[in-house]
Amino acid sequence: MAPRFLHFIILLLFFICSSATLGNNHEDPTTKTMEDFSGYPIHESHSCISNTLSALSVDAQTLQNQIDELSSLSDTPAPSVTRILYTEKDVLARRFIKNLMRLSGLSVREDAVGNIFGRWEGHEPELAAVATGSHIDAIPFSGKYDGVVGVLGAIEAINVLKRSGFKPKRAIEVILFTSEEPTRFGIGCLGSRLLAGGEALAKALKTTVDGQNISFFYAARSAGYAKDQDDLSNVFLKKGTYSAFVELHIEQGPILEEEGISIGIVTAIAAPASIKVEFEGNGGHAGAVLMPNRNDAGLAAAELALAVERHVLESGSIDSVGTVGILELHPGAINSIPSKSHLEIDTRDIDEGRRNIIIEKIRQSASTIAKNRGVRLSEFKIINQDPPALSEKSIIEAMKASSADLNLTHKLMISRAYHDSLFMARVSPMGMIFIPCYKGYSHKPEEFSSIDDISNGVKVLALTLAKLSIQ
Amino acid sequence: MAPRFLHFIILLLFFICSSATLGNNHEDPTTKTMEDFSGYPIHESHSCISNTLSALSVDAQTLQNQIDELSSLSDTPAPSVTRILYTEKDVLARRFIKNLMRLSGLSVREDAVGNIFGRWEGHEPELAAVATGSHIDAIPFSGKYDGVVGVLGAIEAINVLKRSGFKPKRAIEVILFTSEEPTRFGIGCLGSRLLAGGEALAKALKTTVDGQNISFFYAARSAGYAKDQDDLSNVFLKKGTYSAFVELHIEQGPILEEEGISIGIVTAIAAPASIKVEFEGNGGHAGAVLMPNRNDAGLAAAELALAVERHVLESGSIDSVGTVGILELHPGAINSIPSKSHLEIDTRDIDEGRRNIIIEKIRQSASTIAKNRGVRLSEFKIINQDPPALSEKSIIEAMKASSADLNLTHKLMISRAYHDSLFMARVSPMGMIFIPCYKGYSHKPEEFSSIDDISNGVKVLALTLAKLSIQ
Repeated sequence: MAPRFLHFIILLLFFICSSATLGNNHEDPTTKTMEDFSGYPIHESHSCISNTLSALSVDAQTLQNQIDELSSLSDTPAPSVTRILYTEKDVLARRFIKNLMRLSGLSVREDAVGNIFGRWEGHEPELAAVATGSHIDAIPFSGKYDGVVGVLGAIEAINVLKRSGFKPKRAIEVILFTSEEPTRFGIGCLGSRLLAGGEALAKALKTTVDGQNISFFYAARSAGYAKDQDDLSNVFLKKGTYSAFVELHIEQGPILEEEGISIGIVTAIAAPASIKVEFEGNGGHAGAVLMPNRNDAGLAAAELALAVERHVLESGSIDSVGTVGILELHPGAINSIPSKSHLEIDTRDIDEGRRNIIIEKIRQSASTIAKNRGVRLSEFKIINQDPPALSEKSIIEAMKASSADLNLTHKLMISRAYHDSLFMARVSPMGMIFIPCYKGYSHKPEEFSSIDDISNGVKVLALTLAKLSIQ
Repeated sequence: MAPRFLHFIILLLFFICSSATLGNNHEDPTTKTMEDFSGYPIHESHSCISNTLSALSVDAQTLQNQIDELSSLSDTPAPSVTRILYTEKDVLARRFIKNLMRLSGLSVREDAVGNIFGRWEGHEPELAAVATGSHIDAIPFSGKYDGVVGVLGAIEAINVLKRSGFKPKRAIEVILFTSEEPTRFGIGCLGSRLLAGGEALAKALKTTVDGQNISFFYAARSAGYAKDQDDLSNVFLKKGTYSAFVELHIEQGPILEEEGISIGIVTAIAAPASIKVEFEGNGGHAGAVLMPNRNDAGLAAAELALAVERHVLESGSIDSVGTVGILELHPGAINSIPSKSHLEIDTRDIDEGRRNIIIEKIRQSASTIAKNRGVRLSEFKIINQDPPALSEKSIIEAMKASSADLNLTHKLMISRAYHDSLFMARVSPMGMIFIPCYKGYSHKPEEFSSIDDISNGVKVLALTLAKLSIQ
């Protein structure tokens, strides 16, 4: 049956039972609808909940097509996706999302750094809204589901609710966050950090440049943002703007797939930190400079990379991770001793104290290595060192209830990857919904989630938003 | 006194004594001249040798200006020099050299890969010529003396001899060798390897591409070479083309400067080898993939870089060196576990066997590291593994005699850096003249040799060429 027609039937069924309930107890059908969604209080019309739930139908084919189309806006060939902040492909992808928001009847606005908000007005507009969303930027040679599922899935969740005839009390907003990935300017969750009132960041961005020495504001303007001024304080959200924020995301880990569970309900997000390190030595000719006379900045970097791994393992906790994803040598010629090396280190833990001990050990190793090799530790800069975030109990309950209502297996878990939710948690009660992904792969072309798992996530998101929007 | 006028005086003095000797023993003045230069047999005209030697005057200012002008043809700002094979700057630099050759009255020819030959015809053209020369390509962010001193210095040596009135019996050729540095195509001494009959290389070049996937032949044609065909066999030199090859070069080591010696006479050139290694792992998200589930290609590379250093030091010889000048990670994002790493390793020794043991140890370490880390050793390729070269006794004698004639302190030494001489030694008797350079620095902007040291080198080269050209 064509989805359109299916939705018509469901909608019809929905209104019949709404009016039926209207007949029973002289209430506004919208309120009734909300009660149906919330699942409480129980009325004789309770049978309608199941109808309403069954009305939560995801247009899976369209959603998959949107995911595929968005993935084609990439600077590297399929199946890899590379979409860097404020590049041409990023701007095209943003236009694609804004069009979908408008097609879903959302009113669209953008802030000075390109966070995009699509608002579905509730019938009590003065109440704090319920928000959902994620990001669409992609690190070099990564996949097409990270972040994207939480943006396209959120828009589809709105469609699901609209098709079901639901009418929210609180407005529901879909947010596309700017640059969750740190690729271009070395700052992860740039958009959500600012929304959460990142004054230090707003100040730092005035002098921030990318690898090609292009300033943040020049790049932002080239993408059509930050037009008037360099002051970003107007990006900060007022506390209380949102009564809840819920993000749908692929797990980026193997647990749900391994255990055959449909939905992960995130209780906490691990605390990430990133560090930039530079060593400098004398370099020289690879043939002519004898080994005792060398101070090789490249070997110092190699030692530090291995030290990062060692210090992480020393923590003794499975929750501690550390990675050297960037290691660059200068001048980078086979017959030239490296005179400079540059590392970027990422380390995380759900226990902030434990992670900070690792950072301190890395700092000590960097100095020791520099001393022993006679190289200069010309930079050791902690780019960010964020505290972990906890999900809001009431939102956890809403997500659990929604999964149960939909007869979907679910489990409580922590997020080892950070997300925009980590920063939204500073200005709003927060929750996250995970779905399984193939072998836990992420940040590479093999990243995959089945459309069935995605649809389950969208349904849980839709129902959770509905529940939260009427509280 | 203006150099021109000075030369006129010297020339005059020179002809006077030539004709004087002519008066004494009815010989061709040219022959006489040659005897003067050779220093034997001794005639009553012996007094003229000193005149002739004093006639060896280097135009230091012009030579320094040429070195400075050539250094401005660079892809990176001064004081660094970057001049990569077949780039626009390389082509301009070649034009600069060809013009200087013509100004010195040399007949210029180029072969299919851009080796450039400037020939000063001798009065017995059928004899094998005496050759000298070096390279002008420069690795990224290097200096302005490496190679250049041996090309501009060779042309000036011809000028010195011409100004002194010398007439060679054997032709003297100045050679500019193509791509002594391996920067673009990963092959060092590309031009001299081919001249020495590198059939394997000629074959390999048909499928060789650079880092931007530009084929060798496409690049060569864009620079005006290899126009007609891809067959490079016509580049190979016939054995016996040259009776001797002598290269003037900065030491690229600290010994001459430290010991206050003007001239190094090279007895052997260390044997270089270069190796490409690639590791592949699963990569993944830097936050989500737990440490026990990782196979980090970047950490494998770091371990191998340190293993190279260890194996070199294990050799116990000061003459063993090893360098990892290139280490690249893919995808190269701070929050992505490296799924690929690429290393390029350079190792050398004056003892070929000892160096080959190091290579074998590196190979074993690469496999062990791959095994232990669960990464794939997707490439271990020995790009070149050359035997060392010995200088020709007779050329060593000529260089020693020339240094002595010029009252310049000199010492016998080995070359730890490789040079085009290493390959010319396969088709011609070979010798090398070293001059001091600041702290032994090379392959970086601080590379420096004083114009006095350069002039000394040019004089010794000129006199050595003269002696060899009349044998």
